[in-house]
Amino acid sequence: MLQDILNDIGIVVFAASGALLGVRKDFDLWGILTVGALTGVGGGILRDVLLGITPPTSIQNWPPIVVATSASLVVFFFHPAFSELRRSVLLLDAIGMGLFATSGASIAIDQHASAFAATLIGLLTAVGGGILRDVLANEIPLLLQPADLYAVPALLGAGVVGVGATCSSAPTWIWLVVGTVVATGLRITGLVFGLQLPTAPSGLWRRH
Amino acid sequence: MLQDILNDIGIVVFAASGALLGVRKDFDLWGILTVGALTGVGGGILRDVLLGITPPTSIQNWPPIVVATSASLVVFFFHPAFSELRRSVLLLDAIGMGLFATSGASIAIDQHASAFAATLIGLLTAVGGGILRDVLANEIPLLLQPADLYAVPALLGAGVVGVGATCSSAPTWIWLVVGTVVATGLRITGLVFGLQLPTAPSGLWRRH
Amino acid sequence: MLQDILNDIGIVVFAASGALLGVRKDFDLWGILTVGALTGVGGGILRDVLLGITPPTSIQNWPPIVVATSASLVVFFFHPAFSELRRSVLLLDAIGMGLFATSGASIAIDQHASAFAATLIGLLTAVGGGILRDVLANEIPLLLQPADLYAVPALLGAGVVGVGATCSSAPTWIWLVVGTVVATGLRITGLVFGLQLPTAPSGLWRRH
Repeated sequence: MLQDILNDIGIVVFAASGALLGVRKDFDLWGILTVGALTGVGGGILRDVLLGITPPTSIQNWPPIVVATSASLVVFFFHPAFSELRRSVLLLDAIGMGLFATSGASIAIDQHASAFAATLIGLLTAVGGGILRDVLANEIPLLLQPADLYAVPALLGAGVVGVGATCSSAPTWIWLVVGTVVATGLRITGLVFGLQLPTAPSGLWRRH
Repeated sequence: MLQDILNDIGIVVFAASGALLGVRKDFDLWGILTVGALTGVGGGILRDVLLGITPPTSIQNWPPIVVATSASLVVFFFHPAFSELRRSVLLLDAIGMGLFATSGASIAIDQHASAFAATLIGLLTAVGGGILRDVLANEIPLLLQPADLYAVPALLGAGVVGVGATCSSAPTWIWLVVGTVVATGLRITGLVFGLQLPTAPSGLWRRH
Repeated sequence: MLQDILNDIGIVVFAASGALLGVRKDFDLWGILTVGALTGVGGGILRDVLLGITPPTSIQNWPPIVVATSASLVVFFFHPAFSELRRSVLLLDAIGMGLFATSGASIAIDQHASAFAATLIGLLTAVGGGILRDVLANEIPLLLQPADLYAVPALLGAGVVGVGATCSSAPTWIWLVVGTVVATGLRITGLVFGLQLPTAPSGLWRRH
């Protein structure tokens, strides 16, 4: 129950980020709702395609897409307000990312994925919607560019579930909690301290 | 039989639109045939991937891709002629879109998709090829930009089949006919009257 | 055994090409490793999704992604050296492409794909990673632009396996060898002689 609510919060925040990009790119109502909905549920759809869950859960049941589309509709009308909410949105997004990473890994384990596969599929669940958003908007995915830590926390959170659930006898929910705290906590820590990964060294080697 | 012919017409028109974009982008022969073929059968491939039909029908059997590639080859040699055919092409495209939307929804129902899922998968069948075309050509999908109604008619046509076939006892072919007429008719109506969806209101809210 | 080594060489070369593009695009460490890994194993993942092999083999087992990520890490640190290796890289890439095309077709046959489908899936296995690389880097796929022959050799090599393994009683390994030699040989021949496919004729038809 609590997890459902938190999951819906993740969908709302992801969808809003997609809809906002659609507004910035001058998409029409349809384009904004489409990009918003796909950003909200795209990670889950990619997860299900890789796991052979067909039709994907987020399509087979209506709530996820209705939630994502409603959030996008709110953005459509009230987008100027969202710049003021930046900090709250970043916090909710960190929670959504952590939940998507761990729930994705857990669903993968249920479908007989290996710990390695579950970790990667959890990561994809967390970041897939954002990648779809950027590809559809014809931009280089934010995720690949120098920026605050995002994918690494998702990978670690998913890894906690992937490894924990396959290699220990502790109940899965413990790993879900630990993994989500790791992913969300590391994401927020990275934001607070401005942590970044390096770009490629251009001249260290064979400069002379 | 009639449906097969109409379906092939849809593939031809979609493939031609992809090949034309390839010509405009200075792709070589291979690039033009590839984009053409993927635009023609891409929607059906995405549909089959989401439904777990593997290998996808459009790949397992040769006719769809041979039809799409032949159409692209004609465009390769005779592309200057196509600007004169604009109105006929728009009409055929409207028919193809309607048929893809309804047949996609119908195939989804056969694979135990919910009415909701069947509607979305029908929509994807109709618009997926065009999205693949634009992503491969490194352009923002036409579908997301302000333009004539396209996705909304496809959604409604697919919805007629999705809801009709799961919630009524009437034979499916009736819903296929009604859905196609709705989708194609609304598309043509939108073109004739220049109907468009709005973009996001920029200043209505919190101006001053 | 030999085939495994050759396959790993293919993954290394593909991953390196992805990582190099990431360096050129100023991606950070994560972005470079991600694009590298996806270029290395993306073709195999797309192949498995179309064949219903879930989770995809390259995700379920760790070696392919670890190999691809390691190669990307080497590129991250030592990328200036790679420009000097251009000819060796082209040769290894031609071998990797041939192996991916034929092994992809062979795996497809094992999953009851038709000869036609196996040919296309072999092609996709060989070129899918490069397409993912270019789409993620927001560039028009190299494969679609006028350039040295690449996809056509892959298509022919995959076709040898697809047709040979379904229509003859000779053991599959013969077709794997013949197909790889055809694909790799034609690719190298095309490079040596500078073979290219034509772009669309712009004025032959209805000039004046």
